[in-house]
Amino acid sequence: MPTYAEMTAEELLEAKRALLAQYEAYKAKDLKLNMARGKPASAQLDLSLPLLSAITSTSDLHAADGTDLRNYGVLDGIPEAKELMASMLDDDPENVIVFGNASLPIMYDTLARCIDFGTCGSAPWHTYDSLIWICPVPGYDRHFAITEAFGITMVPVRMDENGPDMDEVERIAASDERVKGIWCVPKYSNPGGVTYSDEVVRRLASMETAAEDFRIFWDNAYCVHHLYDEADKQDQLLDIGKACIEAGNPNRYFKFASTSKITFPGAGIAAMAASPENIAEAKKRIGIQTIGYDKINQMRHVLFLKDAQGIAAHMSQHAAIIRPKFELVCSKLEEGLKDAGVGSWTNPNGGYFVSFDAPSGTAKRIVSLAKDAGVVMTGAGATWPHGEDPYDSNIRIAPTLPPLEELDVAMDVFVCCVKLASIEKMLA
Amino acid sequence: MPTYAEMTAEELLEAKRALLAQYEAYKAKDLKLNMARGKPASAQLDLSLPLLSAITSTSDLHAADGTDLRNYGVLDGIPEAKELMASMLDDDPENVIVFGNASLPIMYDTLARCIDFGTCGSAPWHTYDSLIWICPVPGYDRHFAITEAFGITMVPVRMDENGPDMDEVERIAASDERVKGIWCVPKYSNPGGVTYSDEVVRRLASMETAAEDFRIFWDNAYCVHHLYDEADKQDQLLDIGKACIEAGNPNRYFKFASTSKITFPGAGIAAMAASPENIAEAKKRIGIQTIGYDKINQMRHVLFLKDAQGIAAHMSQHAAIIRPKFELVCSKLEEGLKDAGVGSWTNPNGGYFVSFDAPSGTAKRIVSLAKDAGVVMTGAGATWPHGEDPYDSNIRIAPTLPPLEELDVAMDVFVCCVKLASIEKMLA
Repeated sequence: MPTYAEMTAEELLEAKRALLAQYEAYKAKDLKLNMARGKPASAQLDLSLPLLSAITSTSDLHAADGTDLRNYGVLDGIPEAKELMASMLDDDPENVIVFGNASLPIMYDTLARCIDFGTCGSAPWHTYDSLIWICPVPGYDRHFAITEAFGITMVPVRMDENGPDMDEVERIAASDERVKGIWCVPKYSNPGGVTYSDEVVRRLASMETAAEDFRIFWDNAYCVHHLYDEADKQDQLLDIGKACIEAGNPNRYFKFASTSKITFPGAGIAAMAASPENIAEAKKRIGIQTIGYDKINQMRHVLFLKDAQGIAAHMSQHAAIIRPKFELVCSKLEEGLKDAGVGSWTNPNGGYFVSFDAPSGTAKRIVSLAKDAGVVMTGAGATWPHGEDPYDSNIRIAPTLPPLEELDVAMDVFVCCVKLASIEKMLA
Repeated sequence: MPTYAEMTAEELLEAKRALLAQYEAYKAKDLKLNMARGKPASAQLDLSLPLLSAITSTSDLHAADGTDLRNYGVLDGIPEAKELMASMLDDDPENVIVFGNASLPIMYDTLARCIDFGTCGSAPWHTYDSLIWICPVPGYDRHFAITEAFGITMVPVRMDENGPDMDEVERIAASDERVKGIWCVPKYSNPGGVTYSDEVVRRLASMETAAEDFRIFWDNAYCVHHLYDEADKQDQLLDIGKACIEAGNPNRYFKFASTSKITFPGAGIAAMAASPENIAEAKKRIGIQTIGYDKINQMRHVLFLKDAQGIAAHMSQHAAIIRPKFELVCSKLEEGLKDAGVGSWTNPNGGYFVSFDAPSGTAKRIVSLAKDAGVVMTGAGATWPHGEDPYDSNIRIAPTLPPLEELDVAMDVFVCCVKLASIEKMLA
């Protein structure tokens, strides 16, 4: 069969008629399917039910150092939780602060502190007439929403299979002292599933920056979120902390992680790791904002997850549930679009998303067609700053939430919409 | 017996010798007692142990509206928790946002949002050359630490038995548009135990303010923290929300409360109530900062505390534990200082503190003497902005944490230190 690009206009029209019939048939089914957000499925949440009864005696309510977890105190996390989160953050417990229920507020607050107070002795960032931020694309919409809220100009830089285009990143970082930072999801990136190469990590750590207080916001949200148990299918990430120290820029990074997609989103624990100087400053400032975070929930997580090995075993159970969903998405795309020759997509080894690139100028139309047929996707453009994809091409597919049988139908609808929108575009 | 003021120098010297002997005897006991922070006692924390097992089935993990509490979603609190916290905040659930584990970060963040973005359409507060804040004294050191951290000039205003001196508050609020707000602990105030009179509440609500975006930070931390079950010994507070609406200043207030001293400090839930316009703005902005707070812990609290009646019954159990401690403190002061005629103190109906006013110029000396004898008090000056009490007089006594028998000894030491420092001062 010829690809769409090889077809005559008449053949395209013919194919379009067939697709329209198929599309109308889907619409008639009155579907209500959702591939929009990276939410764990109910079966994944069931894995962590024992967390809720992990504290079984009053002795569980005291930390190793004797602290009564039920009372005030302990700003930076109980020792056991610092150790647990340090294993996820590739760092030493003393460089870790364990916070509250999620990492997004840590990132927001860390940026807000830079804006209000500066960092490591620099001027408060609100004293600049404007600020600039490097935003690898496609990226995470909630990151972009934070920099947008603070009025920061976002400069998109394309991701490839090794991470952000480092020539561009280096050029921008060196160009202006108002360029203050970069968002990174360095492992199984959202949405591309890309893990930064060692070279990319080293270049980020060592590049010249016009701003002395340039900061890498290293959102390692998917650090333990492998889809496969086999070692050769588990991506490895160089630690940005060690790389920055080696490069002589020890204060350049803030590392973030959470148990949101390990235990319960919203009822997990989250942490930051950074240099001793950054951590000391953060403690000084968050000691004004709070007396301390939820130590009881920290202990619940310690008792339930135990250590790095415990986390890995638990994540393997998650993978068993979601791996078939990722494989279904990719095989549906392969089967459905190979002949037509439209679109390209990722085959990630981990994380929560498949990134789909539709022919330029069709993403919005595809998402709209899917929506009208009862399949909700992440909004087209969401993976770009301000929700504006200049190519109108990238679509984030989130396969984890729907049951396999629903995902099967949803992907059929999606494939149909991709083909239909592609032909419409070619005929336009 | 003559009071110290009536004594001759010789009599004072004689009394001092006796006190020094007593003091040295205390020192020899190698005591380790603490009346520094308003922490619940272990017996109080035991009251809330059932909270940890309040969730008994998976049906408890779904809100009334069907939301799976284990997954992402719900920015402003589950409906059941909004209702519970609305009862503490004297407001409607739709005017309430339920946040995370404590109210201090809500206050910090609410102020930070005003500074970064302004409020209800006003200019960001960081665009002013300086900001001014009204600080009733004696007050809460952590409040003052927040305004200090943001470089805000703090103007102290004396508290009396009805609340802050409203002539002063009105004068300052009307004087300058950079005067942006006031800290209030309106019920069983920290440390004075004062409940604002209806007139004070109405004057705060209706006063002229030079700033259109003047805000009352209404920290109702002790709203349900009565020491007595009898209705005539339970202070009543006029709702600032209704007062502001009546006065035509509906956006003037932010109300805060938490379960920190109801269930577990650090593992409780906290909430804010405000006008629909303020709440809408807060939701818009916190929706950037977070995906949502810990819904499972919200449900735990709903299941354990149930409603206003459940809270009242629970607080009555707290009161049974701490009431004897407050009564011991006050009787020790009465017995120990009446004859000497030095010092004055409060006899609160609720809250967590007894406020002690020593003779001017002796508070630091008293706290230092007590410390050397093994009794840790809140630092002298802590109840004033920047920790600087210009009269060196106020000392906050926190009776809840130590067991009764320890408190007994600690108060003997304290009384001895007050008398000794007073005589030293008179002889100086």
